Amino acid sequence: MTEIKLADYLFTRLRQLGVDSMFGVPGDYNLRLLDFVTPAGLHWVGNCNELNAAYAADGYGRIKGLAALITTYGVGELSALNGIAGAYAENTPVVHIVGTPPRPLQANRTFMHHTFSDGDYRRFANMSIHITAAQTRLTDAATAPERIDYILQQTLIHSRPVYLELPDDMPDVKVSAANLETRIRIPEPPSSTQEPQVLAQILERIYSAQRPFIFVDGESTALGIVEQLDALIKATGWPTWTTVYGKGLVNEQLPNAHGLYAGAFGDKPTQTYFEEADLVLTFGPHNSDTNSYFYTTIAKPSVAITFSGTTVKINNDTFYDMSARNLLSNLLQSLDSTRLVKASAPPKTELSVANIQDDDPIAQANFYPLVNPLFRDGDIILTETGTAAHGGRNFKLPTGSRLFGAVTWLSIGFMLPATLGTALAQREVNNDTSKSQTILFIGDGSLQMTAQEISVMIREKLNIVIFIINNDGYTIERVIHGRKEKYNDVPFWRHAQALSYFGADEEHVAKNTFTARTCGELKEVLGHENITNGSGVRLVEVFMGREDVQGALLYLLNKQLAQEAEQK
Amino acid sequence: MTEIKLADYLFTRLRQLGVDSMFGVPGDYNLRLLDFVTPAGLHWVGNCNELNAAYAADGYGRIKGLAALITTYGVGELSALNGIAGAYAENTPVVHIVGTPPRPLQANRTFMHHTFSDGDYRRFANMSIHITAAQTRLTDAATAPERIDYILQQTLIHSRPVYLELPDDMPDVKVSAANLETRIRIPEPPSSTQEPQVLAQILERIYSAQRPFIFVDGESTALGIVEQLDALIKATGWPTWTTVYGKGLVNEQLPNAHGLYAGAFGDKPTQTYFEEADLVLTFGPHNSDTNSYFYTTIAKPSVAITFSGTTVKINNDTFYDMSARNLLSNLLQSLDSTRLVKASAPPKTELSVANIQDDDPIAQANFYPLVNPLFRDGDIILTETGTAAHGGRNFKLPTGSRLFGAVTWLSIGFMLPATLGTALAQREVNNDTSKSQTILFIGDGSLQMTAQEISVMIREKLNIVIFIINNDGYTIERVIHGRKEKYNDVPFWRHAQALSYFGADEEHVAKNTFTARTCGELKEVLGHENITNGSGVRLVEVFMGREDVQGALLYLLNKQLAQEAEQK
Repeated sequence: MTEIKLADYLFTRLRQLGVDSMFGVPGDYNLRLLDFVTPAGLHWVGNCNELNAAYAADGYGRIKGLAALITTYGVGELSALNGIAGAYAENTPVVHIVGTPPRPLQANRTFMHHTFSDGDYRRFANMSIHITAAQTRLTDAATAPERIDYILQQTLIHSRPVYLELPDDMPDVKVSAANLETRIRIPEPPSSTQEPQVLAQILERIYSAQRPFIFVDGESTALGIVEQLDALIKATGWPTWTTVYGKGLVNEQLPNAHGLYAGAFGDKPTQTYFEEADLVLTFGPHNSDTNSYFYTTIAKPSVAITFSGTTVKINNDTFYDMSARNLLSNLLQSLDSTRLVKASAPPKTELSVANIQDDDPIAQANFYPLVNPLFRDGDIILTETGTAAHGGRNFKLPTGSRLFGAVTWLSIGFMLPATLGTALAQREVNNDTSKSQTILFIGDGSLQMTAQEISVMIREKLNIVIFIINNDGYTIERVIHGRKEKYNDVPFWRHAQALSYFGADEEHVAKNTFTARTCGELKEVLGHENITNGSGVRLVEVFMGREDVQGALLYLLNKQLAQEAEQK
Repeated sequence: MTEIKLADYLFTRLRQLGVDSMFGVPGDYNLRLLDFVTPAGLHWVGNCNELNAAYAADGYGRIKGLAALITTYGVGELSALNGIAGAYAENTPVVHIVGTPPRPLQANRTFMHHTFSDGDYRRFANMSIHITAAQTRLTDAATAPERIDYILQQTLIHSRPVYLELPDDMPDVKVSAANLETRIRIPEPPSSTQEPQVLAQILERIYSAQRPFIFVDGESTALGIVEQLDALIKATGWPTWTTVYGKGLVNEQLPNAHGLYAGAFGDKPTQTYFEEADLVLTFGPHNSDTNSYFYTTIAKPSVAITFSGTTVKINNDTFYDMSARNLLSNLLQSLDSTRLVKASAPPKTELSVANIQDDDPIAQANFYPLVNPLFRDGDIILTETGTAAHGGRNFKLPTGSRLFGAVTWLSIGFMLPATLGTALAQREVNNDTSKSQTILFIGDGSLQMTAQEISVMIREKLNIVIFIINNDGYTIERVIHGRKEKYNDVPFWRHAQALSYFGADEEHVAKNTFTARTCGELKEVLGHENITNGSGVRLVEVFMGREDVQGALLYLLNKQLAQEAEQK
């Protein structure tokens, strides 16, 4: 039997699945495991804290399809939980590897630090059960390879995080290497006997449709159908929209790509087209209040065909154990384009820079249109929960670029470490530093949650532009409730000093820190060579009004203003 | 029936119990609750993130006996869990109030943001069960007051955190105010029938002791016996030591207070005295590996009398349902001082500044002795896990001052927000800004975890001196394992820019930022008026060697060096 050390087995498996970087923080119970990271050919990204590491792993996983982070028992893993839960909520496969106390200490119920000194070693693992798709605990050399393979397969199948306990005395235990010759794959679902019937029904509905609406949501990634959707959108030429979560899964440069559908909060002609549609093909729906504009983007059953998880729903009939991928493949093969209606779609709404004057103060309404031309093919754009996520919804994305916005978990602070993760993943995918650019839009309140991770971006020499929207506090909370309340304020920071404090070269700092208050100033920054064609971390602080919001947020603000007027 | 709004009921209860400040972060599901904070006379401390808020609450609770923090459902509460677990591990009563979605949304299993969009609203509450002493959920006006009273009583009885769910539609629901007339108290235990017998046994052992050893550990706070211990130490005149956890519970200015007992890692004469003791009176033991120096401070049963929780242990006999407080009261009343041996204690070991030259580089060995004279009566000193916590163990504390060091949870990053919490509590207790001084010792690795909270210290205008021990990474991890490994490095930061970045007045920054590399430079800083008699947040960066450690850490380093030599 060929043998291999346990840690090498685990890391070989991760590398086979495309993981090239590992996030985390060293701690007493994971140091021996960390010894194996670099020798395995993995890049170790030491984060400033574990929550940031989990957020970064989530970002990395969204680009590369799998991510891993290492924390230490108790103090480390618990700090990461919010990030793991976010990956669960928004379908990122992340392997949370926890270095636990050596087996003898656990067996003897020894009162160790990082525990409650009561001999109970199961508490924290029990907590993670609620926020991971599967859990396992390596306890002996004989079963470890199977347990590792199981947990990795689960994270891929469910596209959700998993939890793996690895005791500190086990990294160099020898295990069988036999399994390594077979790759871990998502099992192909058996073809359902109902499939021909379902396919026929779908085709019939497609051929008879007069007002078709293609709607791509974010769980399409987990369904593995993004490439097939591209083919479908091209083959039909039918008008196509996305949710925020689905944005970036559709090539917005296609003539029939209409960008975001905002339901009751969007433009009237599109809403009318949606309501009068006789066929809404929805892929990978994720119907949280936020992602579905309070459920107003959900089509009525009579016109809907919905591909979700392992089910397909047509009218009120749900068909189980269906593979969306198989079904779409067969559909694309069978599709006769000549039988499709040429849909008369509503006009596109696009961001416009007309009517913006140089001396206008920067505002939500002019900022996003001005910034949009900065984006290049393949860029990654991240818009943090808050005004940025709302403003970034109508960006028109270049080919091959991705956008990550506020979907459902909406944990403020997430996007900054996630930017670190996506930028690193992008560099690995492109295998070329110069091509990569990642652009983050984040408010001053969110920034304060996780700001220290800027220092890791700097150390990793990543090409990132950070736009800090300084609107003096939690504007998104102000519009929900407590417009003038002090609890929605945040401490004053000098954001322009961030690159220096967080360790960038003095020369880099001076050339790559920008501030803008007017549209003229912003245009100048956006035209600066270090922004359009620079490298490393660049920082642009832009100032906006405390209550300057648009879209659905404006609706909330007006509701509150009306309540205030009533109370007077 | 007198009625009161639910939030007012809760906050009135908290104020009755001495809570004057509230920590937390606003979020969608707690904003309506936050409306009641300031009107209730509570000071709202908006933290930069929820983990920092939980850490700050823990610090506050250690001084004031109770603390509270408010987070929002899911994203907020999960970020706080590590801090709540730490409060559990180290016995701080903290009320974790979570603003949850309104009752109708929960009842309808609505797919809201900050959930997993699956209608399950119990996951996160179930996670907190593992790390809190009690949990409750406010669901209706009729039962809410009792549930609040119950949860508050539990946090006091167990001296551990509790979890309280408050739906967003309930803060202004009317409830009965009747209970408010009766204060919440820890119930007095019924006097045990065994008490006279136990007391007699203890007195007999005290009178016959020839080599007595009083040992005060940190759970004495939760037992409510700190004042009685002071009386006992004075009445007996017997040599008294503490653990790290117990440090600051004994007045170290008393002639018979010997400071810390470090077991096998301490000085030989004390160790011999301990081993040959015929009576070790131990109060509030907390026997984690770290707090007990790998269990070497635990007395052998034949000489031990141990007061722990609701039990007293004499030799191998455990007596249940005993009140340490009652027992000590009776003991103090009965005690005949003339019958006590005058113990011949080993010599005290004290920090010395002799032999320190001005051009010596700052090192662990000279730093703590030089800093010690800075402390004044009533100061609070916090030493973060790592070299600081080890170095600070031998500080001689002035009367009425407290020290918080690394006990068991050892979550790096904790001490900085905890400093915010203790400083605020200290100001409230003293009711006088000028008297208060809080001094933090923290390494550069730990600092990066939670550094943003410095901005809240600044905003709150707290009198805090922060010593940053810059030793280029996680030195404590280096000595445990991976001495030269890159995973124990941290990103480079310009610490001297912290006060400016985090928003202090330009003038304040210039006068209150210090750096020292030699003992001469350090002495100059320590003599500076702004350090000895200043105000606001002051920052001193001191540089030490990457592998410069002492005491138990030196033992670990030497063990690793020996292993390395062996492998060659």
